[in-house]
Amino acid sequence: MSITIDFQPIGKKVNIQIGQTLLQAAQTAGIGLTATCGGQKSCGACLVRLIGHSDANELSDNEIELIPKPKRDAGFRLACQTIVKESTVVEVPPESLTTLQRTQIEGDEENIGFDPQIQYVDIELSKAVQKDLKSDWEKVQLQLRERDVSNPQVSSLIILKHLPLILRENNWSVRVALSNDIVVGLFPPNTPLLGMAVDVGTTKIAGYLVDLCTGKTLSRHGTMNPQMSYGEDLMARITYMVNENQGENLQHVIVDAINEMAIKLCQTVENNPSPSQIVETVLVGNTAMHHILLGLPVKQLGVAPFLSAVSTPLDILSSEIGLKVSEGSMVHLLPNIAGFVGADHVSMLLAAGIQKTLDTTLFIDIGTNTEITLFANGQALSCSCASGPAFEGAHIKDGMRAADGAIEKIRIDPTGIHYQTINGGNPIGICGSGILDAVAQMLQSGVINRLGSLNADHTLVSKGEKGLEMIVVKASQTKHQHDIVINRKDISEIQLAKGAIRAGIELLLKEALIHWRNVKKVIIAGAFGTFIDIKSAETIGLFPPLAGVEVKQVGNAAGIGAKIALLSRLKRKEAAQIADFIEYVELSTHKGFTNEFTKAMYFSTL
Amino acid sequence: MSITIDFQPIGKKVNIQIGQTLLQAAQTAGIGLTATCGGQKSCGACLVRLIGHSDANELSDNEIELIPKPKRDAGFRLACQTIVKESTVVEVPPESLTTLQRTQIEGDEENIGFDPQIQYVDIELSKAVQKDLKSDWEKVQLQLRERDVSNPQVSSLIILKHLPLILRENNWSVRVALSNDIVVGLFPPNTPLLGMAVDVGTTKIAGYLVDLCTGKTLSRHGTMNPQMSYGEDLMARITYMVNENQGENLQHVIVDAINEMAIKLCQTVENNPSPSQIVETVLVGNTAMHHILLGLPVKQLGVAPFLSAVSTPLDILSSEIGLKVSEGSMVHLLPNIAGFVGADHVSMLLAAGIQKTLDTTLFIDIGTNTEITLFANGQALSCSCASGPAFEGAHIKDGMRAADGAIEKIRIDPTGIHYQTINGGNPIGICGSGILDAVAQMLQSGVINRLGSLNADHTLVSKGEKGLEMIVVKASQTKHQHDIVINRKDISEIQLAKGAIRAGIELLLKEALIHWRNVKKVIIAGAFGTFIDIKSAETIGLFPPLAGVEVKQVGNAAGIGAKIALLSRLKRKEAAQIADFIEYVELSTHKGFTNEFTKAMYFSTL
Repeated sequence: MSITIDFQPIGKKVNIQIGQTLLQAAQTAGIGLTATCGGQKSCGACLVRLIGHSDANELSDNEIELIPKPKRDAGFRLACQTIVKESTVVEVPPESLTTLQRTQIEGDEENIGFDPQIQYVDIELSKAVQKDLKSDWEKVQLQLRERDVSNPQVSSLIILKHLPLILRENNWSVRVALSNDIVVGLFPPNTPLLGMAVDVGTTKIAGYLVDLCTGKTLSRHGTMNPQMSYGEDLMARITYMVNENQGENLQHVIVDAINEMAIKLCQTVENNPSPSQIVETVLVGNTAMHHILLGLPVKQLGVAPFLSAVSTPLDILSSEIGLKVSEGSMVHLLPNIAGFVGADHVSMLLAAGIQKTLDTTLFIDIGTNTEITLFANGQALSCSCASGPAFEGAHIKDGMRAADGAIEKIRIDPTGIHYQTINGGNPIGICGSGILDAVAQMLQSGVINRLGSLNADHTLVSKGEKGLEMIVVKASQTKHQHDIVINRKDISEIQLAKGAIRAGIELLLKEALIHWRNVKKVIIAGAFGTFIDIKSAETIGLFPPLAGVEVKQVGNAAGIGAKIALLSRLKRKEAAQIADFIEYVELSTHKGFTNEFTKAMYFSTL
Repeated sequence: MSITIDFQPIGKKVNIQIGQTLLQAAQTAGIGLTATCGGQKSCGACLVRLIGHSDANELSDNEIELIPKPKRDAGFRLACQTIVKESTVVEVPPESLTTLQRTQIEGDEENIGFDPQIQYVDIELSKAVQKDLKSDWEKVQLQLRERDVSNPQVSSLIILKHLPLILRENNWSVRVALSNDIVVGLFPPNTPLLGMAVDVGTTKIAGYLVDLCTGKTLSRHGTMNPQMSYGEDLMARITYMVNENQGENLQHVIVDAINEMAIKLCQTVENNPSPSQIVETVLVGNTAMHHILLGLPVKQLGVAPFLSAVSTPLDILSSEIGLKVSEGSMVHLLPNIAGFVGADHVSMLLAAGIQKTLDTTLFIDIGTNTEITLFANGQALSCSCASGPAFEGAHIKDGMRAADGAIEKIRIDPTGIHYQTINGGNPIGICGSGILDAVAQMLQSGVINRLGSLNADHTLVSKGEKGLEMIVVKASQTKHQHDIVINRKDISEIQLAKGAIRAGIELLLKEALIHWRNVKKVIIAGAFGTFIDIKSAETIGLFPPLAGVEVKQVGNAAGIGAKIALLSRLKRKEAAQIADFIEYVELSTHKGFTNEFTKAMYFSTL
């Protein structure tokens, strides 16, 4: 009997026969699972985690020896020795992969003024002051007042707990980190103060470490959101949290990942700074991720009218969510706009400079949820489209995320199908940009018509297991020796995704009472948006015709925006103004939506 | 062989033969340990705790059955079945005592304006507002702004976590508790909001529960400070904390006691409110207790120049110290003056109305540390005297704290010695006020001279085990069938205590450049100060002559002051002003101290 193994977060499904090990399944799927010993059951490197209560063989003595107990209790197994008896989701932690999924951490950055929220003052208490009978805190308060901190307060009791020792251990000198009048950290003199900005995406997490004394970016790091194992889209995760009462669990999973991120970010920096030097963290994410991070209830986010618990900018103690950074430090969360247009979109708009925009501009961040903002006639309208994960390679027969071995570019010409994989090598599957290319090229070469139906008479079309399909790569040329194909269902997934986004664009234009020809600029953010071929996107009608429109692909603008908010008080204020300024348009209840969506499902000829 | 059992916090030591049970020891000491079964090992009521690693017999099967494991692990035993092999400190929890020690919770109260720091606003979101797409918190913020809360913030993330559910469960109505602009609690409509004030003394804890919507005091409760088992004076506890690294442990012990206090305070109130309705707690204590409560380091408090970590008024989240009251609520701590003049003295001065005083006045709070403030010529000077625990019945051969069976009043006339015990009944020992009376009467009747020596020729003086003594009660008339005596060492202890206090008074007069005859009022606070005979105090020279001086015994003024700070913002501000206004005089390094102390040790004839 055949069962399906769904490897997450890599996003690759594979059918195997019962009795095969998970290592064999990974090999069949072309996933580079580390197995240093070559499957000899001795290295313990092929650690994976079974999600849910899947029926599998007993732990071997060998596994009990090689896997620490807490990990065993959490469902970790060695892939080489695990045989599951039913379809299962398997989490592959990054350290078990030979190559990592490509995550987007770079993005366009303009020069912003360096004026961080966190400032510092170096204090040295004189011998005379040391002898004074005032309390330690009063002595420091007096010095701070002399340095124009008018009403010095502490963020948390922990600051006062540390004060006596740090003064006495450093000969009564101390570096004081301040957020306005609030002391958020105490350090030995000359300690570099760090800031961390993290864009917590549904799928990926991108982090930045900056020196808050100089404004320099010290390191960048991208990783997967480990919540992927609990549902690949937000609705699935919300349902899981509400039904299984697992909100805290999902919060811990993501906070742990950010703590891990902080360690990784520090490791690559000279002089090996410690996360305990991080005196401020800026977090951005969509509204659901924002709520999960803060441990706020999400139930009301999952049902119409999708109300968020809070959407104003927030400053909270890092300890309130369990961040392992400087004790007493704060976390700043940029504002949300609505239940499905979150702080990450505000952050993207900040980085893309909407506040300085004069031209009519469309800002778009494509993902499982796609957020769109149209700036026109001095107003800004935003909406969210449930575009689904097809553009991330999911729900596509041979789809996969953007990792090594993924086909990222496709061209069809009279000589046949040409493709390019990420980092070269034999292909395993197709990622979002490759699928977009494929569909555009299939449309242009007549493999499909504008309804999305495959032309049975076309030389590239053949009959597969599930109806007509186009073989992109023959089995012999793949890494896993299976044909890589695109079938009718795959094309439908793309139609749904592009239909949702295009409908969103059309409805925003209608709401703003302007015609597409007035739009001067399109700014596209996000990993998918960065790597797509704009021509292909235009061909399938993801966008209206782009002739005469300036198109800019700005990379991970949400992450860059978070970093900007860390470095500039003024920009942080602008982010709040952006969120206030934007008018949210709810598409799901919009009377014109069904009509626009149906129209947009078809591939238009340009 | 004979060993000593030191029962705490009751403060009674007893010598027993090895082999006797702790129940027998308690009975010998006259301590009313509950033993419902009459020592038949069946009721489990005589629960006591062994402090330190004392060598005792193994736990019996019976104890394993009757004592829950966490308690067993914490050193709890049944007194009827426990035989220790060495001198041991035994903690007797209040619930194991048939009668409780008298704690001082009453005090003089004047009418203060009711204007608490915590205000509340009742909000009802209209149907139209409910449908609005704004976040829950924005909706509440808008309503608060309409009610003149200009910049609504939250004290903690927990408030935002509770918001969505409380709104939906109460049909979009909510009672919002506010401290200035900060939301500190959310409640269903009509929930009474409570405040708790606690005076955390070295020996005793006094608590008050008030209704913050009406200003009414709902209940009062007094209990022992369980830290007594870790050292009866502050220096002993500080040493223990520093040497054994047990700061957190002592913090937990006292916080647990306050949590217990909150439950007790609520239990005696109509409609059985819950501690989760307590939206503000005001805590006062001496500086060491203040630091222990907050988990601040105490090492520097224990060595000259006795610097405190913080002395300004503080508002912290109740969760920061583990208080189990309303989540998100704040704890206010009144300011300290110096390392050994704490917030409890500020609180006493507030309750005694120093801020309105025009006359030259001496304020004194007698305890293990005695704090004295002299208000004269528009200035206020304060000092702390290490008066020791003799006035609390400790370090006195037959001394005990003020509990049932303690001799609290003594008169000597030609017919002999007359006494009165607390709540009548046969005497067990002598408490502070009784000892003070005894020494004064011994002095007046010639049993001792002004050096404190016993007159061997006096009819009341006899030769005891440890030299000359006066038998106060013969064995036959006591509860435990042992003579109750006062010996030379006991008198020395009183001389040291009164010497320290009197020296403090004299030095403050010198520092203020005034003569005693200018002092118009003496205000005495604290349990000991409330129950003493003023005439006796004057006789032994605790105070200078009191003719023409108005003397007021104001009871637990520190506790009342805490309650006042809970009920009035204005008074809370006054407390901060009092602490700022007071000038602290350090006695231990004062050049005149040794001289004054030596002089004050003698009993002066009036």
